[in-house]
Amino acid sequence: MHYTLPPLPRVLVEPLLRAAFLEDLGRAGDVTTDAVVPADARFSAVIGSRQRGVIAGMDVAVLAFNIFDPTLEVIVERVDGTAVMPGDVVLRLEGSARSILTAERVALNLACRLSGIATATAALVAAAKPFGPAHIVCTRKTTPGLRALEKHAVRAGGGSNHRFGLDDAVLIKDNHIAVAGGVGIAIQRAKAHAGHMVKIEVEVDTLEQLEEAMSFGVDAVLLDNMDPATLARAVAMVGGRALTEASGRVSLETVGPIAASGVDLISVGWITHSAPILDLGLDAVTEI
Amino acid sequence: MHYTLPPLPRVLVEPLLRAAFLEDLGRAGDVTTDAVVPADARFSAVIGSRQRGVIAGMDVAVLAFNIFDPTLEVIVERVDGTAVMPGDVVLRLEGSARSILTAERVALNLACRLSGIATATAALVAAAKPFGPAHIVCTRKTTPGLRALEKHAVRAGGGSNHRFGLDDAVLIKDNHIAVAGGVGIAIQRAKAHAGHMVKIEVEVDTLEQLEEAMSFGVDAVLLDNMDPATLARAVAMVGGRALTEASGRVSLETVGPIAASGVDLISVGWITHSAPILDLGLDAVTEI
Amino acid sequence: MHYTLPPLPRVLVEPLLRAAFLEDLGRAGDVTTDAVVPADARFSAVIGSRQRGVIAGMDVAVLAFNIFDPTLEVIVERVDGTAVMPGDVVLRLEGSARSILTAERVALNLACRLSGIATATAALVAAAKPFGPAHIVCTRKTTPGLRALEKHAVRAGGGSNHRFGLDDAVLIKDNHIAVAGGVGIAIQRAKAHAGHMVKIEVEVDTLEQLEEAMSFGVDAVLLDNMDPATLARAVAMVGGRALTEASGRVSLETVGPIAASGVDLISVGWITHSAPILDLGLDAVTEI
Amino acid sequence: MHYTLPPLPRVLVEPLLRAAFLEDLGRAGDVTTDAVVPADARFSAVIGSRQRGVIAGMDVAVLAFNIFDPTLEVIVERVDGTAVMPGDVVLRLEGSARSILTAERVALNLACRLSGIATATAALVAAAKPFGPAHIVCTRKTTPGLRALEKHAVRAGGGSNHRFGLDDAVLIKDNHIAVAGGVGIAIQRAKAHAGHMVKIEVEVDTLEQLEEAMSFGVDAVLLDNMDPATLARAVAMVGGRALTEASGRVSLETVGPIAASGVDLISVGWITHSAPILDLGLDAVTEI
Amino acid sequence: MHYTLPPLPRVLVEPLLRAAFLEDLGRAGDVTTDAVVPADARFSAVIGSRQRGVIAGMDVAVLAFNIFDPTLEVIVERVDGTAVMPGDVVLRLEGSARSILTAERVALNLACRLSGIATATAALVAAAKPFGPAHIVCTRKTTPGLRALEKHAVRAGGGSNHRFGLDDAVLIKDNHIAVAGGVGIAIQRAKAHAGHMVKIEVEVDTLEQLEEAMSFGVDAVLLDNMDPATLARAVAMVGGRALTEASGRVSLETVGPIAASGVDLISVGWITHSAPILDLGLDAVTEI
Amino acid sequence: MHYTLPPLPRVLVEPLLRAAFLEDLGRAGDVTTDAVVPADARFSAVIGSRQRGVIAGMDVAVLAFNIFDPTLEVIVERVDGTAVMPGDVVLRLEGSARSILTAERVALNLACRLSGIATATAALVAAAKPFGPAHIVCTRKTTPGLRALEKHAVRAGGGSNHRFGLDDAVLIKDNHIAVAGGVGIAIQRAKAHAGHMVKIEVEVDTLEQLEEAMSFGVDAVLLDNMDPATLARAVAMVGGRALTEASGRVSLETVGPIAASGVDLISVGWITHSAPILDLGLDAVTEI
Repeated sequence: MHYTLPPLPRVLVEPLLRAAFLEDLGRAGDVTTDAVVPADARFSAVIGSRQRGVIAGMDVAVLAFNIFDPTLEVIVERVDGTAVMPGDVVLRLEGSARSILTAERVALNLACRLSGIATATAALVAAAKPFGPAHIVCTRKTTPGLRALEKHAVRAGGGSNHRFGLDDAVLIKDNHIAVAGGVGIAIQRAKAHAGHMVKIEVEVDTLEQLEEAMSFGVDAVLLDNMDPATLARAVAMVGGRALTEASGRVSLETVGPIAASGVDLISVGWITHSAPILDLGLDAVTEI
Repeated sequence: MHYTLPPLPRVLVEPLLRAAFLEDLGRAGDVTTDAVVPADARFSAVIGSRQRGVIAGMDVAVLAFNIFDPTLEVIVERVDGTAVMPGDVVLRLEGSARSILTAERVALNLACRLSGIATATAALVAAAKPFGPAHIVCTRKTTPGLRALEKHAVRAGGGSNHRFGLDDAVLIKDNHIAVAGGVGIAIQRAKAHAGHMVKIEVEVDTLEQLEEAMSFGVDAVLLDNMDPATLARAVAMVGGRALTEASGRVSLETVGPIAASGVDLISVGWITHSAPILDLGLDAVTEI
Repeated sequence: MHYTLPPLPRVLVEPLLRAAFLEDLGRAGDVTTDAVVPADARFSAVIGSRQRGVIAGMDVAVLAFNIFDPTLEVIVERVDGTAVMPGDVVLRLEGSARSILTAERVALNLACRLSGIATATAALVAAAKPFGPAHIVCTRKTTPGLRALEKHAVRAGGGSNHRFGLDDAVLIKDNHIAVAGGVGIAIQRAKAHAGHMVKIEVEVDTLEQLEEAMSFGVDAVLLDNMDPATLARAVAMVGGRALTEASGRVSLETVGPIAASGVDLISVGWITHSAPILDLGLDAVTEI
Repeated sequence: MHYTLPPLPRVLVEPLLRAAFLEDLGRAGDVTTDAVVPADARFSAVIGSRQRGVIAGMDVAVLAFNIFDPTLEVIVERVDGTAVMPGDVVLRLEGSARSILTAERVALNLACRLSGIATATAALVAAAKPFGPAHIVCTRKTTPGLRALEKHAVRAGGGSNHRFGLDDAVLIKDNHIAVAGGVGIAIQRAKAHAGHMVKIEVEVDTLEQLEEAMSFGVDAVLLDNMDPATLARAVAMVGGRALTEASGRVSLETVGPIAASGVDLISVGWITHSAPILDLGLDAVTEI
Repeated sequence: MHYTLPPLPRVLVEPLLRAAFLEDLGRAGDVTTDAVVPADARFSAVIGSRQRGVIAGMDVAVLAFNIFDPTLEVIVERVDGTAVMPGDVVLRLEGSARSILTAERVALNLACRLSGIATATAALVAAAKPFGPAHIVCTRKTTPGLRALEKHAVRAGGGSNHRFGLDDAVLIKDNHIAVAGGVGIAIQRAKAHAGHMVKIEVEVDTLEQLEEAMSFGVDAVLLDNMDPATLARAVAMVGGRALTEASGRVSLETVGPIAASGVDLISVGWITHSAPILDLGLDAVTEI
Repeated sequence: MHYTLPPLPRVLVEPLLRAAFLEDLGRAGDVTTDAVVPADARFSAVIGSRQRGVIAGMDVAVLAFNIFDPTLEVIVERVDGTAVMPGDVVLRLEGSARSILTAERVALNLACRLSGIATATAALVAAAKPFGPAHIVCTRKTTPGLRALEKHAVRAGGGSNHRFGLDDAVLIKDNHIAVAGGVGIAIQRAKAHAGHMVKIEVEVDTLEQLEEAMSFGVDAVLLDNMDPATLARAVAMVGGRALTEASGRVSLETVGPIAASGVDLISVGWITHSAPILDLGLDAVTEI
């Protein structure tokens, strides 16, 4: 099997797209296109990249155009996860000029954002790879309403996903530990009450905390804001008994040394919350 | 009257927040906090800025915490539009530890993003101000589902809003002109069919197109990708008969010269689609 | 280009139709049709007008039948905006008898109401036309939930649309002026805070207020409850510097004299809030 | 017990009101009020009737203002079902000027429409009363989305409600009979398949059909478009074995003679689909 | 006409199915199938019964698979209401392996539950039939969100439906009588205020209450928790003037004697609230 | 910390309750209570258990009453997870008689169902306990729309939760293995593509499959339909390297021997899909 990134199920994406169209169309629809473009005008267009990057959101864009007008022909030229160069065509469109021009922005807003996330992720993955086997993973610092899409874009960029929400894994953070009264008691409570299919991770700031955490047993440790040397010592202390995850101050410059520490995972918030978009644009091919 | 930026109506923001909580809580809720934090633990916390910037989204954050748990006390220390320095406290929280820790991420994801937009806008506004009276305005390149909030954040940063959607103003773009068969015919059709309270703007790429547009009469012209010298000639040609809007390749470096051309408006997509977040974080004050 | 009134986008109308079907079908569906009509019975029907009027809502009716049963064949005989006489067929239907009889009421309730609005608008337009160039425009006094459809129906009747909501234009009314402390201060605040693509209109009750308004500059003035002579003086005072809109006590009898005053716009609430329906009915052609 | 018309449950009305606010506020909210009215301005207002009529929708209006701003004080002066004269105050409001002015239109659009329905119903009830004991009942020809509210308004006007949807009673109409192949077979099928708590009514156009219907037994007969004399014969034929309902061409002039025929019910579509609104308006009392 | 149980309208069922998929797919979709099953793998499967029973929910299952993936071929082998034996195939599926395996659980959860209800109902119907003509009817004790489907399943099992909600019939229960102050006053109030198409039923615990109820006149009496002998006396007292409904302690053992009392209806809560599912399973036919 | 089962977040439960009320109230609300019960009547009631069992859904019931009428006083007497005897009062209610009688059924339908699940779970837990340390866990065979509530009820009964949906853990079943072409290849693909916080479980039918699964390494094995002796051999083969889960033919009789095999988990579908309700009823205390 040649593995291709599976698209998100249509039933999951469709509500987001319908809401996005309602937001953009308002109450009166596209007053410009309705006034200026004849009802029977047809249009042939391409969506191309204006930048180097990695594409994501193609299935979402296709669904957007098809929800708006099921008669549009939309062909994907670059599937999610593909690297593109400026000028590369990623999608071809043909059909009603009104439909294409009205639906364009909703499709592009999502595709540009998701491709931006994929591109940022891919850059980090590439920067880390020569130094160690660490996976680049995203966080819950995603755009409200778009988490599933943004996590998909991270996968398109070669990254992996951390938990999707508060309910699918235990992640004990500093404030939890403070309220609980210590790392050990927090882990014990989590083990007593979390489901058996739920992994438990604990955030530690120091090697002392790490030692305490390991003595109670966890599935993963989040090593927060440690420098590469400390990370390496932490990895050695853990000795394969748990997944090790580094977080904090991860950039294209620092990700190499962090990866070199031998951690299993490097989590990065900014690939979802602060990645600039990848500039994709729609251009007319010719009017038909 | 001392004008303060009005918050968005509660009925408009509440659905977004409820959807955001469902997304983050999933089916089982916060399994970590439920397991680790005692039901009766109380918590006192502040949300502070870790960076210099301009704050937005405070009313949204308050509403988030209050929707999740109406018994939380939440006090705004810095209203939307306020400049902050690292360490400044922007919000104070007191109440159930479980509620605060569970609701934290939804509130922060929105507040960080909106503050990032306000900060980017404010930077552009400041960079343009010495050179000319141009307003910095945003576009429709916003995050699907969050347009109202992101446009509000632009206002918090000192910018202004362009149209909110396809229905509240006519903006004739290059593809419309291509399909219609010319600038003049497009403008005529728009005038014939758009409502009387709807302004009409046309995008022009050249001074020839501008001349044609002005001969038909429009409320505003979008001068796309023109260099400052050409912009200045365009502004002179228009001579106050329409609003002049510059767009394309606007950065902190270029915005000054663009503003110096005398345009009324400078529209920028990246303040909404690519601004990095402003890093806000929640810290425990003391457990009570 | 021969301009035809564009239909509202499907994504915008579909939620209303689905809600209308849930309302009419309740929990058990059409218990009469399910009991009485055989599952395989086919039906051929027409929707015809029982009155003279102007048709609107045909696209909405087609979508209603198609959402309920995509296998129904539905053909529009009279597009929105067409004048009809009693007996004119406006829509033809063929397919499952159960589907047609069950979906009939939702489709008719909307088509009758929208055609009633179009008919009332067309009557006013015809009555005003000989006297002056004024456009007949609607207000925000629409049925909650149906504003987009009702504003579309006004266009079908030859009228134009005023603003669609509180967010797409500034309209300073008497109570705003009272709270603000005067016409001038209200206009100044509106200019300072409204977006550049948003037009500003102010309601004035007297020529003194009009003079004050014009001295501050606005895009439009709403001349409320003035008699035709006063309206004519107001139009002269404005002298083309702003759009002039008359409102108040507009009927088929008064609209002519009002139009003769030379105002640009005559706004009328009752075409949306009090127009009687146009009586459309579904009749069997023959059972097949 | 002095019977007062019960308000509709809050959980049933609230979704309609939230949707109505989203429709009116759009994406940016009330740009006029936000710009012109100071945040701390308070306002005292009354909603009064400008016409003679019967009030309905007061509970709905109160809920509208309270959903928009729970701090508003809203007092009902005239409960649903009360007759009012021009100048009568029906509701008093006090609180934030911004909230009152922004929420006004949603509340009034519903209250005016519902009061219009109550008023039209009350007029018919009054016109029929001297002639016979018939109840005035409404139909399914209601505004999509507002059926529950409009049926409530009919009750406020002294009328009664027919079925609420396709699922809560059997009403065999002409097209059902045509497809089924006769009145008798249709009634038999309905009896075989409808639930025991569901009443069965059949529409008949002639006394022959009526005779056939009565021979099979039904709970009610809809006597469609019969003149008063024929209605009286029909009532006599039925002889109390079923409810008799007259429909078709019911007006203030005809309702008396129709009632005099002795029918139990007179159903009228236009009280819900074509009643003009009752003109209610909001007036400032004084600024505080 | 050979009567087949009509399926519920698609517009009524679709929202439930979409919600069910969102619940099961969460934010990331089917991580197992996406990882393990190749995108182009096709699958041929049958859904078969592992138990003896009566089938319901086949149309719902078909719609579930088609909403998830419109390219799936789904063929119903046993329509709702059919008796099945272990091993009987009820549905055939062919198409994308991923789609079938991902959508399977939503479809089965509903089909198993509805078939369980149909099976329980059919057992009661069969047990009652030899003893009397009573219909087995369900109550409002249904699963929140699924009432329409569960009432349909009761019909599939040969039962009938009582009212669908609080709004489509009057059922005066013990607590109503207690608050109202007596059976008679309660009935009088119901007659005064309920619509003419709404039947009125009153719950009575004793023959004295029954006598009082009959003296005021009702459409149906609910004879609660009476033994068969008392029921028989009650039926005799009513003498055909109202429907008689027995409820309370109805089981496969008691239903015969209860039916023998001559009551018209026997209502049973447990066929909807406590019926075990009918075990249906999906099996691969062969991979293609 | 004395651990109490945390209630589900209000934002998660509220939409279900609102939908349940709309389903029960229909369009007209509670026509019985509105007609029969005076508006100002007050009511004092208790909800008590008529059976022995374990309570769940108390927080849900409280929220139901409070959503319907925030002025009701509702006091929980038995928190979720408490064992009750017939006659035990679980909830006390005081306030408007209309509100209590109208909201009763929605609250009871949920509380009875959830308590039924808790009771069934508790019985299995008690039956298994003397024989081994196995946890009783539920499956995805839950009622569509109610999964979060039903999984909560399982915890209330002393059970644990398996995965909540298709997205929060990998569970490779027989059909996945068939399509993938073997246990090993399926596990490898899952490891390659699933997130690091997602546990991987594989279903095996034979000890040969188990051996293959263990050689590839998984977090858990689902031992399907094995007899206790085979289960014991499987547990020995696994030797603590993975969680062992037994499923298939689990009843109160078989759960002991299955637990005695030493498995970690015993999963049971029927506690959610076929558990009879726990009979809870509302009784008047006294009218006030």
